[in-house]
Amino acid sequence: MFFASDNWAGAHPKVAAALSANATGFDAAYGNGGIDQVVAQRFNDVFEREVSVFFVATGTAANALSLASVNRTGGIAFCHREAHMIEDECGAPEYLTGGARLYPVDGPQGKMTAENLEAALSRYEPEFVHSGQPMAVSLTQATEVGTVYSLDEIDALAAIARKRGLPVHMDGARFANALVTLDATPAEMTWKRGIDIVSFGGTKNGCWCAEAVILFDTSKAREFGFLRKRAAQLFSKSRFIAAQFDAYLADGHWLETARHSNAMAIRLAKAIDASGNARLGWRPQANELFPIIKNEMVERLTREGAVFYPWNPPHGFAGPIGPDETMCRLVTSFATTQEEVDRFGDLIA
Amino acid sequence: MFFASDNWAGAHPKVAAALSANATGFDAAYGNGGIDQVVAQRFNDVFEREVSVFFVATGTAANALSLASVNRTGGIAFCHREAHMIEDECGAPEYLTGGARLYPVDGPQGKMTAENLEAALSRYEPEFVHSGQPMAVSLTQATEVGTVYSLDEIDALAAIARKRGLPVHMDGARFANALVTLDATPAEMTWKRGIDIVSFGGTKNGCWCAEAVILFDTSKAREFGFLRKRAAQLFSKSRFIAAQFDAYLADGHWLETARHSNAMAIRLAKAIDASGNARLGWRPQANELFPIIKNEMVERLTREGAVFYPWNPPHGFAGPIGPDETMCRLVTSFATTQEEVDRFGDLIA
Amino acid sequence: MFFASDNWAGAHPKVAAALSANATGFDAAYGNGGIDQVVAQRFNDVFEREVSVFFVATGTAANALSLASVNRTGGIAFCHREAHMIEDECGAPEYLTGGARLYPVDGPQGKMTAENLEAALSRYEPEFVHSGQPMAVSLTQATEVGTVYSLDEIDALAAIARKRGLPVHMDGARFANALVTLDATPAEMTWKRGIDIVSFGGTKNGCWCAEAVILFDTSKAREFGFLRKRAAQLFSKSRFIAAQFDAYLADGHWLETARHSNAMAIRLAKAIDASGNARLGWRPQANELFPIIKNEMVERLTREGAVFYPWNPPHGFAGPIGPDETMCRLVTSFATTQEEVDRFGDLIA
Amino acid sequence: MFFASDNWAGAHPKVAAALSANATGFDAAYGNGGIDQVVAQRFNDVFEREVSVFFVATGTAANALSLASVNRTGGIAFCHREAHMIEDECGAPEYLTGGARLYPVDGPQGKMTAENLEAALSRYEPEFVHSGQPMAVSLTQATEVGTVYSLDEIDALAAIARKRGLPVHMDGARFANALVTLDATPAEMTWKRGIDIVSFGGTKNGCWCAEAVILFDTSKAREFGFLRKRAAQLFSKSRFIAAQFDAYLADGHWLETARHSNAMAIRLAKAIDASGNARLGWRPQANELFPIIKNEMVERLTREGAVFYPWNPPHGFAGPIGPDETMCRLVTSFATTQEEVDRFGDLIA
Repeated sequence: MFFASDNWAGAHPKVAAALSANATGFDAAYGNGGIDQVVAQRFNDVFEREVSVFFVATGTAANALSLASVNRTGGIAFCHREAHMIEDECGAPEYLTGGARLYPVDGPQGKMTAENLEAALSRYEPEFVHSGQPMAVSLTQATEVGTVYSLDEIDALAAIARKRGLPVHMDGARFANALVTLDATPAEMTWKRGIDIVSFGGTKNGCWCAEAVILFDTSKAREFGFLRKRAAQLFSKSRFIAAQFDAYLADGHWLETARHSNAMAIRLAKAIDASGNARLGWRPQANELFPIIKNEMVERLTREGAVFYPWNPPHGFAGPIGPDETMCRLVTSFATTQEEVDRFGDLIA
Repeated sequence: MFFASDNWAGAHPKVAAALSANATGFDAAYGNGGIDQVVAQRFNDVFEREVSVFFVATGTAANALSLASVNRTGGIAFCHREAHMIEDECGAPEYLTGGARLYPVDGPQGKMTAENLEAALSRYEPEFVHSGQPMAVSLTQATEVGTVYSLDEIDALAAIARKRGLPVHMDGARFANALVTLDATPAEMTWKRGIDIVSFGGTKNGCWCAEAVILFDTSKAREFGFLRKRAAQLFSKSRFIAAQFDAYLADGHWLETARHSNAMAIRLAKAIDASGNARLGWRPQANELFPIIKNEMVERLTREGAVFYPWNPPHGFAGPIGPDETMCRLVTSFATTQEEVDRFGDLIA
Repeated sequence: MFFASDNWAGAHPKVAAALSANATGFDAAYGNGGIDQVVAQRFNDVFEREVSVFFVATGTAANALSLASVNRTGGIAFCHREAHMIEDECGAPEYLTGGARLYPVDGPQGKMTAENLEAALSRYEPEFVHSGQPMAVSLTQATEVGTVYSLDEIDALAAIARKRGLPVHMDGARFANALVTLDATPAEMTWKRGIDIVSFGGTKNGCWCAEAVILFDTSKAREFGFLRKRAAQLFSKSRFIAAQFDAYLADGHWLETARHSNAMAIRLAKAIDASGNARLGWRPQANELFPIIKNEMVERLTREGAVFYPWNPPHGFAGPIGPDETMCRLVTSFATTQEEVDRFGDLIA
Repeated sequence: MFFASDNWAGAHPKVAAALSANATGFDAAYGNGGIDQVVAQRFNDVFEREVSVFFVATGTAANALSLASVNRTGGIAFCHREAHMIEDECGAPEYLTGGARLYPVDGPQGKMTAENLEAALSRYEPEFVHSGQPMAVSLTQATEVGTVYSLDEIDALAAIARKRGLPVHMDGARFANALVTLDATPAEMTWKRGIDIVSFGGTKNGCWCAEAVILFDTSKAREFGFLRKRAAQLFSKSRFIAAQFDAYLADGHWLETARHSNAMAIRLAKAIDASGNARLGWRPQANELFPIIKNEMVERLTREGAVFYPWNPPHGFAGPIGPDETMCRLVTSFATTQEEVDRFGDLIA
């Protein structure tokens, strides 16, 4: 019953097999090998247009370099108050941009509202050097609290950004989970909505380590190559990332693993709904759940082998959470089994 | 006949197998898993003392973060003029230190001389803010031109640094190749000689992607953890690095692959020595050779399938190189076969 | 009727005279001249202990370098949401620290509350690399909205910081204005309350350009010298700053100009209180006032030659502000005359 | 007999008077005041075209922000090995650019040769991310060793830069001294030769503190405003700089002080030429001299009140310098008197 995080799982057998299959032979380093080219084309196919793909080591790197690529002097990026970039990256975006600021925008359930984004941006006047300069809007899809922006919501946020000439970044560490929730195509969820750059994550959905920055404006690719190398993120034997993405994207495999993961979350949600010992803080839309669980049940579950973390309720969460209760986070993954979920359900019933 | 670089090879079968064997099951992320602990102990054994180990994505990251961990305001690191940090990292050390400078020190065949290091350092007075502050000495072992510092040479450089209170870093992208050349232990080549930090590379010697920073002063480990995370170099599923190092270090496997690689270089050197169409620029001591080859032979070798790069002669190389000749670089690896070498030898004869 | 800002005034005649008096003759550059030493001693006297004094070009430089001097990897400084460092420095603190974050703490009337500071800090655990590390608390005295922390309030904030080992910085761009309001000594308002570093401003209170960083821990002075030089803030002919501070601090002159400035603010406040066309948003405690003025009166005042800015009400200001009203900012200075104030009072009556 | 540096002098009486004359009254801050506009026009007149002028606190700031304004990812600026940016700025250019590198180019007597610049640049290929990217060429006029680039030499260096699309910066800390040596106009020495950005120094030639960045491409001005503010270099009461430049530039005053300074250097040179106790290392062309003086004469001069520094001979100086001799640096300024020079001449005779 491992629900601590989707990064506690290993690699999917297909991904592991692809690595083994590519271990022998010689090929050009630094992204110039044969399989690198194959995967570049796979991404073109996935997004239904030509894109530029840059493998990096971590989701944090993808986010930070995405911002670095659009930064301005005194630059300010606008993202949700509880975005991964603010809460969980040790200041990497600020560091790798040379000091950009992340402006925390509020909104319920992990999503910026258009109204709050508009209000935040309206404080800045283009020629007033004292305030610095807005430089990007970044939204996380799926969010840190397991919710998903609708296509209309993405449209609305992107329109506000576009009105001010700001590029829009999507932190897609759980891109696939959001995609299958919306039943949309990658193109529909991104560039057709006004997204310019995507942090495309494969690690949480079955890869060992497969993160990429996707640029829809391929004229930015040359400079991004230098950005990545300067940030010490250019793998020499980059085919080891390519091989993972190759298996991941082949035959819609990535969508299958995401569907499984989300389905396990829904099954878990049902068990919690049915329990008198716990209730969901809000409806999960991807593969993360935030139940409020009676403390003695938390102890019992833990004793029985369930692994998960207590969690700080998000800013503005209306609650209430009783003194004998704890908000927790449960995360499912490609490797979560129905048996695990049902065993957890039995225990919490 | 792939001699372009040791990073054109894939992964050694043992490394590939270790990855596959660790793909299933759940384990703690971010370096807290079971196999992470096993590998930490392996490094303690390798270095015959307690060390702190930090996996990072690239050798460039290992070098740049090593310097960042000892940087001072207006800091200056002293390394050979042709060090990888200067020539091949797109300014990553300067960027990730927030602007430290790399001071190029001269010396024949890729090695700083003690005299030149002493002269460079003597220009700096501790309280003179205009000049900035020396903050580290970094040497590359094996060097970028395939030579190896002797233990006495390391001693001499480290002593100069120590006299001024400067830490000493070793760029060990080809650590194993140097080690087997010297027939020394890892302890003898590092902390027993005054080395404080090592960029320990596994990638060029049989791993997919296995680079680590080794700190001999474990009291610096806490801060380094933040440095690595802030630089977007903390892998979530870090066991995929650990699994590689586990197989790499087990039973002296890493020394075997390095011995093989160096032996192939020597075999190649003999073939070149025997040829009338080429001669070595200097004696190789690890797994890189720099022959001067007749241009028409370069063409012929290339036509016959040999892959290698022309190379700028190092600063101060006395030559001469004729107008009908080119200096080239050949690199061998764990995957180089005797057959490849002999075929190259036949062609160049 | 110039109430736009205290930096619209020129230099006090005594300051101007001191500059002229020091224009001739030769003296050592870079802070080593005779008058530099005199002023260093003046600061020791002002603070009743040995301090280290570093002249810099701007208040923004003083703030940013103060933070840089105590920064940690992934560092986070806590200051009021409307602090000058956040609102008005174009990201200089983030830039000059290499990417530290400013965490916005709430509190009414420009002052962090102890409760909010405690809550903000309590989110951070010392060994959790993902969150980054708290590195300083910074409070502005007087605040950006013309209020002043009491000595007890400073005590309370500093105690919270000290409990976590964090240094406390005071942005004293209007240090003198706050001091005369509290009728305290510089020592009482700073190190006796737990302040470690002060941005000591003279510019807004009668100098041309006289800003300094004061370190109470003189063991940090050596490194700060490099920090200042590296940030291009070391004046060559630094006696031109020293001469200003010499005249500024002599015979309590700086307190006189601040008292005058504050008295003019109170006189202005009385005129506004008496007016039916305006009311104060809150009680001014230093030399800034934030009246809510009827729009037609704003126009009339402007037409008659009064210079001041409309101002965004601070976050959380309860208002109300009618649609026919505007919040404005008025600032008095050493150069404000009773006649100007009374003329403004007559107009607004 | 103060020959330690031109920044040991105070301010010229005309500059001091201008400051006093502008001390009273109110005016807009941050460069928007009346006299700021007057001085902007003065610079247009000086350069015979519209330019953008940015006051900054120090020459180091002018240099570092000039480079920051043209920096690229992995950027490398090419300047003379003994440039002020390399030797005397504590890494400010690297720091304020976020990690750009200064590539040291050799050349006799403080001047890069076209051949050496060409050779240095030719190592870089535009698409090779490992090496980083050339981003600027910077030359110092007058140089750090008192020599002056001829107009033809500037032409040649700028042409090499232009061929590769690189902007050219001139460090003009001693701009006026070079200008009067060449008997050229400011336009002829800069944009007519291909210079894009100038660090225009007034401090060493009679001001207290008057340094500016001049951009010939005024379309870059908007961004530079943010760069300056972010670097904490935007003065609030900026008229105190403007007033200095106003007096400095009026009626060719700045050229007079430079002519005087250079004339004093020539008079000093003659005295040294005539002496049996000293000889010049090379011919001075501006206001700095580098004589090699007998050690016992150094002691005697010092005892008699002459102030000057011993100096490291520049890299590649052919010498010889005997064991009983020392290379020294003597600098003249607007405040140097004929009497001082002659007294020195009498002593050294």
